[in-house]
Amino acid sequence: MQYATGMTDFRFTPLTTTLPSSVPFVGPETQERARGGAFDARLGANENVFGPSPKAIQAMAEAGHWMYGDPENFDLRHALAAHHGCTIEHIVVGEGIDGLLGYLVRLFVAQGDAVVTSDGAYPTFNYHVAGFGGTLHKVDYVDDHEDPKALFDKARDVGAKLVYLANPDNPMGTWHDGTTLSHALDNLPDGCLLVLDEAYVECAPKGTAPEISPDDPRVIRLRTFSKAYGMAGARVGYAIGHPDLIVAFNKVRNHFGMNRAAQAGALAALLDTDYTADVLGKIAKARDTIASIAANNGLKAVPSATNFVAIDCGQDGAFAKRVLEALIAQGLFVRMPFAAPQNRCIRISCGTDAQLQLFAKALPIALDAAAKG
Amino acid sequence: MQYATGMTDFRFTPLTTTLPSSVPFVGPETQERARGGAFDARLGANENVFGPSPKAIQAMAEAGHWMYGDPENFDLRHALAAHHGCTIEHIVVGEGIDGLLGYLVRLFVAQGDAVVTSDGAYPTFNYHVAGFGGTLHKVDYVDDHEDPKALFDKARDVGAKLVYLANPDNPMGTWHDGTTLSHALDNLPDGCLLVLDEAYVECAPKGTAPEISPDDPRVIRLRTFSKAYGMAGARVGYAIGHPDLIVAFNKVRNHFGMNRAAQAGALAALLDTDYTADVLGKIAKARDTIASIAANNGLKAVPSATNFVAIDCGQDGAFAKRVLEALIAQGLFVRMPFAAPQNRCIRISCGTDAQLQLFAKALPIALDAAAKG
Repeated sequence: MQYATGMTDFRFTPLTTTLPSSVPFVGPETQERARGGAFDARLGANENVFGPSPKAIQAMAEAGHWMYGDPENFDLRHALAAHHGCTIEHIVVGEGIDGLLGYLVRLFVAQGDAVVTSDGAYPTFNYHVAGFGGTLHKVDYVDDHEDPKALFDKARDVGAKLVYLANPDNPMGTWHDGTTLSHALDNLPDGCLLVLDEAYVECAPKGTAPEISPDDPRVIRLRTFSKAYGMAGARVGYAIGHPDLIVAFNKVRNHFGMNRAAQAGALAALLDTDYTADVLGKIAKARDTIASIAANNGLKAVPSATNFVAIDCGQDGAFAKRVLEALIAQGLFVRMPFAAPQNRCIRISCGTDAQLQLFAKALPIALDAAAKG
Repeated sequence: MQYATGMTDFRFTPLTTTLPSSVPFVGPETQERARGGAFDARLGANENVFGPSPKAIQAMAEAGHWMYGDPENFDLRHALAAHHGCTIEHIVVGEGIDGLLGYLVRLFVAQGDAVVTSDGAYPTFNYHVAGFGGTLHKVDYVDDHEDPKALFDKARDVGAKLVYLANPDNPMGTWHDGTTLSHALDNLPDGCLLVLDEAYVECAPKGTAPEISPDDPRVIRLRTFSKAYGMAGARVGYAIGHPDLIVAFNKVRNHFGMNRAAQAGALAALLDTDYTADVLGKIAKARDTIASIAANNGLKAVPSATNFVAIDCGQDGAFAKRVLEALIAQGLFVRMPFAAPQNRCIRISCGTDAQLQLFAKALPIALDAAAKG
């Protein structure tokens, strides 16, 4: 018996039929399968090569994989509340910032609702907005920085429900100090929620995180264990916001969606402050090393407050793409910004000394290859 | 500065404002916090107390928590395709069956779309249908079995896009043989997709899983590593269906949502067939033990093809609830069906010998307490 069916035979929603079914983000494993071998250095996804605290690893091993996780994420939220000086009612834990962004967009965005972000900012946010039928409005970066004034002005112009701002920014690594953002908030239009993505803020200078009350209904802050805490594979993110907003996640979240070992690992990682401090030192040192490698090749590194560095290749996006491909051909997994003019850069995650030596060796070869076209 | 806001001040979607924000399913940890101590036996969530294969545990420990998981879930899908005799295009991996049900409902159900299930069947499916604005129509169980004919007739009557059927059933543990279901499919109305939840099918007699071509566009089958494979905490489920349906999950899924260790653990668990066979033997033995305990107390166990047994307490739902509460008071985490007349039962997961001895001791005390009202 043969079953032939075109996709339109399934009774998808009208919105579903408009969405692309391609995998939007190509992972390094896909590239490894295509090239027939593992990368020598994995420096493209802003993972933390220094990994999680040994205490987190132990907690994950001992968590009891046969049991579902606590749907309230109580212990982790309790520790996060103490860490941030708020209550557990201010905190929701979810399957990474990606998962939380999906829930957040779902809570707010129906077909045609306006949302604002920067052109070239985090594409997964855009993916979720499109996925719920929202209309995305974009403003430009200014000098490789996201522009709070332009974002909030645009939000007012279009009546946006959500405006996305990452501080520090991905993919550029740039940042605003907290005071600048606090002042910018005065310009946020009524009824527009600021989605403040602070995935990288632990890597940033003191004062980068704005002092915003967790009771401030204008802002929801997103944090993660994927970057400073070295647990990208575990999928643990959290949001801090007004309790009336936080409780609304219970309307849509996958209550038993958290991996139990990940819950335990995140808790242990949070409490191991010495280990985190040590890793942050290694990240800062690696940023300097990447900047030096860029300078040695006559290129400028964009100052970064994250665990990666954007290197300005000094020409256009096509040139940078050739540099990127020549690095990949040499066994280095790296990525680059999507949008012009940021796509004149390549983006290198903070690696170990050995990995950055590979990069130092590969970069001049890649630049030569790119110059030849 | 004080920020007072009522929930309506947030510009949620109209659908969001209609949804309840309570946590729909109380986990055992919540109950443990309320009672001020751990349960002596955790027999309420149909977890697999025998746990995952040691090879799965090792694979999870060695997976590299600092790296994101492969967004294509390639290795696991490849192994699952070999296991089921289909291609990887027939398989999507997601964050447990719960996560996949959410994606599936989102793909199909918009405000007012009709969906059919049995009254008292898996509540998380209902949660997702409500969460996307669908209208749920229910049919009754017949003799503690889900009723394919009534389900499909109702689907025709209401023009349902989806009809949910678990085989074996949760919460009753009953099942239909595969041939019965294959024949019943002839009555499935055109344009209605059967959501066949086979979470427990590995525990069932041979022939329980119907022979349905993975290319059959009328059915999507859901499987999990939470039950037979003992990895509920890892959150790994998968679906088997027509490639045009499976690829549509890429429109809405959280591409980097899978825990990397869980991907590796599921793969190792799938391949350790000797371990799984051993665990399935222990589950079958525990089912018999639970049935004996019921008989020793003058109660009847509902025959089960799962890793749990529903015990008919012989009276109404109020009586069974008193039995349940008296078991919980004695330190046993157990649950019971939600809907009448199935709620005359309590539901006991297959435990170890030691755990079932605790249950054997506690049940007569609970029945006495319940009889006193």
